Amino acid sequence: MIGDGRCIGVFDSGIGGLTVVRELRRRLPNEDIVYFGDTARVPYGIKSSETVTRFAHETCDFLLQFDPKMIVVACNTASAAALPALEASLSVPVCGVVEPGAKEAVLLANGHSIAVVATEATINSDAYRRAMKRYQPDARVIQKPCPLFVPLAEEGRRCEDPITRSVVRDYLEPVVRLDPKVLVLGCTHYPLLKGAIEEVTGPDIQLVDSGEQTAKAVVLHLKSVGALADADEPGRLSCYVSDNPQRFRELGQRFLDHPIVDVTWISPEQFFACDVKVNAE
Amino acid sequence: MIGDGRCIGVFDSGIGGLTVVRELRRRLPNEDIVYFGDTARVPYGIKSSETVTRFAHETCDFLLQFDPKMIVVACNTASAAALPALEASLSVPVCGVVEPGAKEAVLLANGHSIAVVATEATINSDAYRRAMKRYQPDARVIQKPCPLFVPLAEEGRRCEDPITRSVVRDYLEPVVRLDPKVLVLGCTHYPLLKGAIEEVTGPDIQLVDSGEQTAKAVVLHLKSVGALADADEPGRLSCYVSDNPQRFRELGQRFLDHPIVDVTWISPEQFFACDVKVNAE
Repeated sequence: MIGDGRCIGVFDSGIGGLTVVRELRRRLPNEDIVYFGDTARVPYGIKSSETVTRFAHETCDFLLQFDPKMIVVACNTASAAALPALEASLSVPVCGVVEPGAKEAVLLANGHSIAVVATEATINSDAYRRAMKRYQPDARVIQKPCPLFVPLAEEGRRCEDPITRSVVRDYLEPVVRLDPKVLVLGCTHYPLLKGAIEEVTGPDIQLVDSGEQTAKAVVLHLKSVGALADADEPGRLSCYVSDNPQRFRELGQRFLDHPIVDVTWISPEQFFACDVKVNAE
Repeated sequence: MIGDGRCIGVFDSGIGGLTVVRELRRRLPNEDIVYFGDTARVPYGIKSSETVTRFAHETCDFLLQFDPKMIVVACNTASAAALPALEASLSVPVCGVVEPGAKEAVLLANGHSIAVVATEATINSDAYRRAMKRYQPDARVIQKPCPLFVPLAEEGRRCEDPITRSVVRDYLEPVVRLDPKVLVLGCTHYPLLKGAIEEVTGPDIQLVDSGEQTAKAVVLHLKSVGALADADEPGRLSCYVSDNPQRFRELGQRFLDHPIVDVTWISPEQFFACDVKVNAE
């Protein structure tokens, strides 16, 4: 067994998926990762399932040029809308963020209520509730769209900011009153607001970070098929964006918890034609 | 002079431009209006000038099929980024929202400081300050990006909502301390927050709604070239969106201050190919 040196492809509508990359790099520091952020069309969270599915297909076509050993859909909205279609059409394994988060929540809740906070599109898709019911048919699921969380995180507001705290209270107090045992952070931006969220949910509600659970699922998958990289050096992170590389670099480091060095802006002509001849080496 | 029965084309990244349509219909109730909201790629306010310019060109190509007598760029970000390029390439008159708002602000400020609130992209473009300096070279301009205003308005939060009030205070108190005479609402979403904004700015600061000034400029232009419609019936508003017609209809009526009846979802294939055979009759 000599390992698989190919990269892991990861994509999101923008910078949120970098919280998933952070968790992946923590567990798999020697893997090369190619990340695509669709910053020209961000956010996906207010768009229709059809449109998000089309965007996801275009993005995967782009990532396939890097010959990835698997693709991680590091976006809850795209996972909720497009995962079955991607699984059906792609020849590489695909992992979304909804399933791992839903599974962990059901385990931890142990029959008690589960709350999910996410974008409008993810909540409307009902993907978390459906996934939870596959593991536990009588799962009781509370779903709450929190549309201001993404712009709050993107604006760089900290957990101790009074605006952050009052918005979090506004969304979560009605949820907490229903006494859930577990709260799922169903959007890859939300881990940045974890401190403010925990202040409202208190010690009795366990938080599940879908991105963290996804990183664990990726490790398990790569181990099970013997496809971990057999490298000694740190893996390389190459980022591609469809717009605004400077903003991505500046905001992204808070999501990645590390400076971002390698960002390439690809024009829509390149993106749509998928004629970029690139090599992730 | 028999008037010009052709429509007015209006576009925005999403629903915000409907506040401009509202002002247009108030002044020109007999004009047909064809509106395009680019809801698949909304918002423009966090995107680069190059990308926004490309989107604006694609949108105008779409609108030209309706044979409009003029096109109104009812989006501050697109006006700031793309107006010169659109004026250079289009054969119909184009009116943006930045110039009329800037002109009115300079007149009202009468030598005192002017504040502009807008999206990140509009502020970064420096378009308002540049336009104001054309009218008054020593204009003193304070510019403040307010990235949470659009999601607040889109979430349907009212002016009396405590979150709305605290966000507005957070952005505007540092601006008010600089004692401007005029505050320009440099984003077509912001008129929905006018009540909360006035609470912070008080009676001594005059608000300028760029959309309202734009509607006045459109009336002036059409009158001056003798191109007002010579119709007795109410004009028709036809809306086209690139995504999520249901969300557009639901949210949009608050921006238009009127129910929206006629919304058509056009697929990207139609949009990019511009091969829709449509007639605004």
